[in-house]
Amino acid sequence: MAKAVKLEGIFTPTLVPMDARGNVNETELARFFEWLIQKGVHGLYPNGSTGEFTRLTVEERRRIVKIACEVSNGRVPVLAGAAEANTRETLIACETYAQYGAAAVAIVSPIYYRLSPDSVYAYFAEIAQNSPIDVTLYNIPMFASPIDVPTIRRLALDWPRIVGIKDSSGDVAFMMRMIAAIRPSRPDFVFLTGWEAVLSPMLMVGCNGGTNASSNVVPELTRKVWELSRAGQYEEAMRLQYRILELFDTMLYPFEFPDGFRAAAELRGFNFGHGRQPLSPGQRADETALAEVLRCILADFGLVDPPAAGCVARTGQTGTDKIGQIVAEVVKELEKRGVL
Amino acid sequence: MAKAVKLEGIFTPTLVPMDARGNVNETELARFFEWLIQKGVHGLYPNGSTGEFTRLTVEERRRIVKIACEVSNGRVPVLAGAAEANTRETLIACETYAQYGAAAVAIVSPIYYRLSPDSVYAYFAEIAQNSPIDVTLYNIPMFASPIDVPTIRRLALDWPRIVGIKDSSGDVAFMMRMIAAIRPSRPDFVFLTGWEAVLSPMLMVGCNGGTNASSNVVPELTRKVWELSRAGQYEEAMRLQYRILELFDTMLYPFEFPDGFRAAAELRGFNFGHGRQPLSPGQRADETALAEVLRCILADFGLVDPPAAGCVARTGQTGTDKIGQIVAEVVKELEKRGVL
Amino acid sequence: MAKAVKLEGIFTPTLVPMDARGNVNETELARFFEWLIQKGVHGLYPNGSTGEFTRLTVEERRRIVKIACEVSNGRVPVLAGAAEANTRETLIACETYAQYGAAAVAIVSPIYYRLSPDSVYAYFAEIAQNSPIDVTLYNIPMFASPIDVPTIRRLALDWPRIVGIKDSSGDVAFMMRMIAAIRPSRPDFVFLTGWEAVLSPMLMVGCNGGTNASSNVVPELTRKVWELSRAGQYEEAMRLQYRILELFDTMLYPFEFPDGFRAAAELRGFNFGHGRQPLSPGQRADETALAEVLRCILADFGLVDPPAAGCVARTGQTGTDKIGQIVAEVVKELEKRGVL
Amino acid sequence: MAKAVKLEGIFTPTLVPMDARGNVNETELARFFEWLIQKGVHGLYPNGSTGEFTRLTVEERRRIVKIACEVSNGRVPVLAGAAEANTRETLIACETYAQYGAAAVAIVSPIYYRLSPDSVYAYFAEIAQNSPIDVTLYNIPMFASPIDVPTIRRLALDWPRIVGIKDSSGDVAFMMRMIAAIRPSRPDFVFLTGWEAVLSPMLMVGCNGGTNASSNVVPELTRKVWELSRAGQYEEAMRLQYRILELFDTMLYPFEFPDGFRAAAELRGFNFGHGRQPLSPGQRADETALAEVLRCILADFGLVDPPAAGCVARTGQTGTDKIGQIVAEVVKELEKRGVL
Repeated sequence: MAKAVKLEGIFTPTLVPMDARGNVNETELARFFEWLIQKGVHGLYPNGSTGEFTRLTVEERRRIVKIACEVSNGRVPVLAGAAEANTRETLIACETYAQYGAAAVAIVSPIYYRLSPDSVYAYFAEIAQNSPIDVTLYNIPMFASPIDVPTIRRLALDWPRIVGIKDSSGDVAFMMRMIAAIRPSRPDFVFLTGWEAVLSPMLMVGCNGGTNASSNVVPELTRKVWELSRAGQYEEAMRLQYRILELFDTMLYPFEFPDGFRAAAELRGFNFGHGRQPLSPGQRADETALAEVLRCILADFGLVDPPAAGCVARTGQTGTDKIGQIVAEVVKELEKRGVL
Repeated sequence: MAKAVKLEGIFTPTLVPMDARGNVNETELARFFEWLIQKGVHGLYPNGSTGEFTRLTVEERRRIVKIACEVSNGRVPVLAGAAEANTRETLIACETYAQYGAAAVAIVSPIYYRLSPDSVYAYFAEIAQNSPIDVTLYNIPMFASPIDVPTIRRLALDWPRIVGIKDSSGDVAFMMRMIAAIRPSRPDFVFLTGWEAVLSPMLMVGCNGGTNASSNVVPELTRKVWELSRAGQYEEAMRLQYRILELFDTMLYPFEFPDGFRAAAELRGFNFGHGRQPLSPGQRADETALAEVLRCILADFGLVDPPAAGCVARTGQTGTDKIGQIVAEVVKELEKRGVL
Repeated sequence: MAKAVKLEGIFTPTLVPMDARGNVNETELARFFEWLIQKGVHGLYPNGSTGEFTRLTVEERRRIVKIACEVSNGRVPVLAGAAEANTRETLIACETYAQYGAAAVAIVSPIYYRLSPDSVYAYFAEIAQNSPIDVTLYNIPMFASPIDVPTIRRLALDWPRIVGIKDSSGDVAFMMRMIAAIRPSRPDFVFLTGWEAVLSPMLMVGCNGGTNASSNVVPELTRKVWELSRAGQYEEAMRLQYRILELFDTMLYPFEFPDGFRAAAELRGFNFGHGRQPLSPGQRADETALAEVLRCILADFGLVDPPAAGCVARTGQTGTDKIGQIVAEVVKELEKRGVL
Repeated sequence: MAKAVKLEGIFTPTLVPMDARGNVNETELARFFEWLIQKGVHGLYPNGSTGEFTRLTVEERRRIVKIACEVSNGRVPVLAGAAEANTRETLIACETYAQYGAAAVAIVSPIYYRLSPDSVYAYFAEIAQNSPIDVTLYNIPMFASPIDVPTIRRLALDWPRIVGIKDSSGDVAFMMRMIAAIRPSRPDFVFLTGWEAVLSPMLMVGCNGGTNASSNVVPELTRKVWELSRAGQYEEAMRLQYRILELFDTMLYPFEFPDGFRAAAELRGFNFGHGRQPLSPGQRADETALAEVLRCILADFGLVDPPAAGCVARTGQTGTDKIGQIVAEVVKELEKRGVL
């Protein structure tokens, strides 16, 4: 079992490669974990939302954590997503992952039903009371029951086993409210942001690191933003932050999450196969064309070769309005194929 | 395997009793299924939201459907909730439930991630193409990816295997839009409402029935609303509908769903035990007191004996404002126990 | 001053015709009011959302109510929208409209800021305490501070001057909750729905009438739905209700509100001019083409002549998915003009 | 008429003092404007949301801007809120404010109705085309039609008259997306944040300043955050930023906006009287007690004397959970008055 490690820095919420038959491609997964560690991420975080934990079976989730622990072999901490159907099943996962050597588990707030703060407290309290391994809370209000600041504070003060929170709201003021409410009494409690669009500002206000889907694609760069921000070099950090925002928005908005991240990580030399959410033929064609835009962005960073056909000039617009540019690329692509 | 049945009338989205160790109480479950059939529900719908399918293991979901099919033994159709982690697992469930003798399966729209209409279409299309059993869509936008009218229409026109939709939005105009868009081309397609607050108005605009959590508690009365509405006796139907609304709001709002329904169904003579979502001691005390309010409402229907201490006059208010009255009951209860 | 009138039936939230210089076209307005009364609406409701009260000046709002009272001359009650910048200004409007002979005023819940229930109560209480004329509440949660059931109940029980509520949420269960909470203590309190998509179901659950934008366009038909529903002839009412839904959705969704209603009412023989919200050239072209679809729907009712070019078959789809059909019409129209 | 000024730094969205009769207290208003300028704010911004522009009459809005221009007399730029009932009325306000000597006007996106991006564009384009004075956009999606990034970009590229945007969403990533989309083509375009909870992070990502309600209360401190952030001294800026967050959350959440800011500004030596939104007696009692908490926070900054009764230790929690602490203060206050 791993000794207590402070969960600081960039933890990659790892993507899951699939093989041609739709099974987890364990060989590629191990190779991908190794590459991430080589590229400098501070930790591995399997079974997060980016890891599509809800689309895996219980056995697959177990295997993925086991492989992460084996590949890491103590080099970087493994933060294992351990949410299962109910607290009893979750506690079995906690025990299993402790035995595998995970540093801590991350437990998403109850999904599907939207629970009250009292019920969210009771849920995490039952886990914290019985878990043999440190627990981090995972707040992702767009997908799961929100965890509000008073509840986080109660949990942090009542349960030493709870050692941190990952927040994917992207709200900088919310991060500050959590830190103001908890750090004075629990200086060891870690705050991680899941929203790399504002990673540097989040670090500036005092958060300890990030669990960022983009670190599957550009682990060197998310680490660089973390280091520059830690060193107080915000001007340089922000130059990089703006470029990561462009990449992030292009991976996030025109795709179903996390397919854009899968497509971009594939350009780094891995075979991710098809995700488990079916796509229509039109969506598959779009993804192929969009991958060219992603290649252009990654080529600007010098991380991959640019496409042979060259890149359309980008406008500096990011986010949903990116779609206009992307449509142009798609049309170009379809013309190349003779579809239009 | 069951022959094609039109899924009309009241299908009970069945609650799951738990034993003292937190396992599914299969004996009580079978007794409960038998009671529901005796009380006149048109069908059983295990593994719905009321059945807390997300809090069960794969094996538990299988067992529950098996028991439903065995108890029914062809007397009423079983509509089996079959959503699993991904389409491959879901299709295995479809095959299994077909073998058990279910009449059809109900598949909730993709949960956790919020998917686009195109992806929702692709998801259901893959299932419809491969399922050996009829499929109903399940739209519950507060918990899962919404299914919009054009997508429902495309699915209904493209896939004969898809035979209906259960909608839990409670929006009467949305129900009408679905019916207007689909019934002319697919007169066999069934429309079921999951929102018994407006069961009679929904039947009036043409929907075929309901999958209503309240039918776990007052199966005689939801059936009566259905029959009166079908006979065009809306004045009498509405008198009952208003009383069901009061009961529904009292079971729904002060509790975490579906705990209020569990508490009320228990008053009909079943032991439901504790649900799997942990509750705080304060919440457990509240539930005990709230059960007294529920007993008063059920006693007014003549379905149970009133409490020995008598009932506080109710105000005619339903919904969240009911809470004022309920707090009075809770305080009374706590005083009785000497807590206040 | 008018004597107390029960505000039942269909009140038209009247549109405002503009002249070529962008001023209120008072002559056309008076002619339109007269036509509505001839066509059988139960009352006139100037300065509602359909009447774009927020886009008028104080003086314009006064003139419009004055003309309504003069044209009606006691034949039908005038329910005058009287919300101004603050309670003092609103009370001046109340006094003015009382002098003009309005039957009652309608006051929208505070706009812009989203206020708490306590503040909504205080706002209406101050008006009710000082108004010389009966007041109806106006709940339109998509645009203004929501008024919840306990607040409506408090206001109804505390202030006899408050005589009813217009609710534009379109939620049938919410209507039932209001009626259940208030009617036993205030049997005279009137409940009007602003959502004609479900006018007949709303009447079936007990509401007293509607303030429906569609009654600017098809006053004969909204009245017919009201009469059939009152007579318990729901089957026939619903046949008409479904057709009104198609019309309503076509006027509501592809346009900015209330421009679709303006375009359709224009087909009944009035010159409404341009609304005050500027439109882009593209939007103006769309509106022209969409008017053809509206003409086809109205022609099916026998209320106007069909377009010379004939009508495309409609699919039975209503709502946002209508847009597909509409785009086809627009394209056809643009082709006719040689734009495409 | 003022010459073109770059709208950088902290612009105070000025509060409006009322006299005992409920009229604008013009003497106190002028004294307040003078004090703000003395305390170092970079500009005055009358008729914003903090200035309750929707609760004023047309004449009152005119007078307030006139007084601001007269008091400033060219020392600081006046950014005048100029939104009126429609574009014609708004353009009259633009002309008037230009004559008064305002540096620019701020126009909130259309209120009440929620308009599409195309309509938002058409609205601002009509104003920009005809305004004799520079225009800033005002995006406040919680109260008015949202302005999305592509629309802001189109407006910025098409209309030189539009010189900036005030955004009150508080979303740092949204600020970055705007800057990335527009600054390369319009380097003069200014970006102001209305959300002082994250003022320093906003400045760090490149925004030009703030229009912050808190600068009515602590103009020295919001200016200090701006200066420290501009100088790259983020560690010191953030220490102050956390304390401003505590103050901001206490003024914002337990009160109706902007009453908490009025109560706090009053402690700086001004008589703001009662706002125009009526309050219940209970709300007035709460406000009195809450003012004591605000006095404690301001006393910690050394800006006012602490209350004679001393201050309860604060927990470091900010935001809604502050309410627990506040309730304690309220109870203490009520006890002092013999109410409890």
